[in-house]
Amino acid sequence: MAKDLVIGIDVGGQTTKCGVVDARGTVLAQTVIRSDDTTDASVFIASLAEAVNHIIADAGAEGRIRGIGVGAPNGNYYTGTIEYAPNLKWGGAKVLPFAKMLSEQLDGVPVSLTNDANAAAVGEMTYGAARGMKNFIMITLGTGVGSGIVINGEVVYGHDGFAGELGHTCAVRHNGRACGCGKTGCLEAYCSATGVARTAREWLEMTDEPSELRSLDKITSKDVYDAAKDGDKIALKIFEYTGRILGEKLADFIEFSAPEAIVLFGGLARSKEFLTEPVINAMNANVLPLWKNKVKLVYSSLKESDAAILGASALAW
Amino acid sequence: MAKDLVIGIDVGGQTTKCGVVDARGTVLAQTVIRSDDTTDASVFIASLAEAVNHIIADAGAEGRIRGIGVGAPNGNYYTGTIEYAPNLKWGGAKVLPFAKMLSEQLDGVPVSLTNDANAAAVGEMTYGAARGMKNFIMITLGTGVGSGIVINGEVVYGHDGFAGELGHTCAVRHNGRACGCGKTGCLEAYCSATGVARTAREWLEMTDEPSELRSLDKITSKDVYDAAKDGDKIALKIFEYTGRILGEKLADFIEFSAPEAIVLFGGLARSKEFLTEPVINAMNANVLPLWKNKVKLVYSSLKESDAAILGASALAW
Repeated sequence: MAKDLVIGIDVGGQTTKCGVVDARGTVLAQTVIRSDDTTDASVFIASLAEAVNHIIADAGAEGRIRGIGVGAPNGNYYTGTIEYAPNLKWGGAKVLPFAKMLSEQLDGVPVSLTNDANAAAVGEMTYGAARGMKNFIMITLGTGVGSGIVINGEVVYGHDGFAGELGHTCAVRHNGRACGCGKTGCLEAYCSATGVARTAREWLEMTDEPSELRSLDKITSKDVYDAAKDGDKIALKIFEYTGRILGEKLADFIEFSAPEAIVLFGGLARSKEFLTEPVINAMNANVLPLWKNKVKLVYSSLKESDAAILGASALAW
Repeated sequence: MAKDLVIGIDVGGQTTKCGVVDARGTVLAQTVIRSDDTTDASVFIASLAEAVNHIIADAGAEGRIRGIGVGAPNGNYYTGTIEYAPNLKWGGAKVLPFAKMLSEQLDGVPVSLTNDANAAAVGEMTYGAARGMKNFIMITLGTGVGSGIVINGEVVYGHDGFAGELGHTCAVRHNGRACGCGKTGCLEAYCSATGVARTAREWLEMTDEPSELRSLDKITSKDVYDAAKDGDKIALKIFEYTGRILGEKLADFIEFSAPEAIVLFGGLARSKEFLTEPVINAMNANVLPLWKNKVKLVYSSLKESDAAILGASALAW
């Protein structure tokens, strides 16, 4: 039978999505498993292989899988390893030969792997908001902050395969928040879903201002979004603050690679009605005059689950 | 006669260097003119054309010039223009068709133009410290701070031709110094030759600490270097401070493009005996664990005047 299908896998801090994809970019079958219920990579990879076999059966795709593409935090395109990924319970302190291990669980099907944000960028370039663009920066605002940088139509991997860790550039130089990576003040500590929840907790402690968030036991970024929709003042200020920090750093990134657009993607990007204005204002206030009001800020136009799966799958062709 | 020679021109804030270069990268004749004694671009370009004709005659190169390559602040490779260059007296507030104007003054010889730091990076990649490297970032520490970014063996120009303005990324977010570009807190306001002189002036005013710099009317970065060599405490602290700020930003840049090396070049790089340690310490303290002690910090191995001329000349082949 013709090997006319591929598998795309998006490994995230909390969940991992996988799908069977055809040559036109249609996701024929997909499923989601948890990423955070084991600290043992072998256990995780065994359940992932099981899930993959499951969707292959669902799609009637036995014998038709040409290869597997994986997007994962700290994934290395050159070596197929996941290295020191602070957001993965089973991948924090080691170099894990993920592509090799997964391939062995699946009868030797070839597995390619890259940074999850790089995979999303490829998906966006092929099917989404960055179609036709040769120079853009994809920022994924999820549990963490990831990035995929495209220059001259190609994803930037750098000397060692790890380029594009913009979530760990410094947003707050002095007395910055501790980040999961071991540094302080990282963009990710402020502009991820967890960063937004943290800002909420800090601000509620620091002030007496009334807020509907005070009634909650554990605040998520979704709670802050819901409160902002209700006109909650602290919630609105949290998005202004988050947007300003993100915009300030985007200005730095523009001065690096002069992209046509910044593409925002991920859970937190759903709050665009509150983020867009402060991001754009801070971005334009902090770039050189020659880029003021010139670089587009766009949001992913793909369904979230599809973008990551499609991007990862593109690696496998 | 065979057109077997090219001209390389390096336009700087204070002086402009030009040279006749052969295919092996030998500079056969060169000269220097002032860049800062007129506010009229036509006047500057006329004297530059005169200088070029002069070195052509010196090298006995009449009829053998294939083309001219120019490195200039805010030079655009795609359009041949110099746009809003704050460090050029005659180029601050407009889009100047520099390549076209110079070509017209020289009987239509083709003129290619790029950012001065991009030109230096090409020179370094072809003849200098970055030979054989596919991924590196060149930082020029002169009157301003420029940068040339090489990814996969190619200079990054970005969507509009202006990529690589790392001197204007933000080094000090709050109450930062005013920069010539109109923004505040730019790397250039701290880590250029003028930035070092400014740090000296500010610190001398702020404290009563004794320093040999107090006896000087107008302090330059060279004076600070000389004082540091004499063991002057303030001068030594100035280099520590300058190096730390530079190293902190280099960490951000590494997280963007994962280069094999950072190449430092320019007048201030001559102070490497005082800069290296604080730069490397701050760089390694601020990158993700995966890059700690992995990215090389190297200094240009070309004679300063030659590097810029050779780099620019390479554009003309």
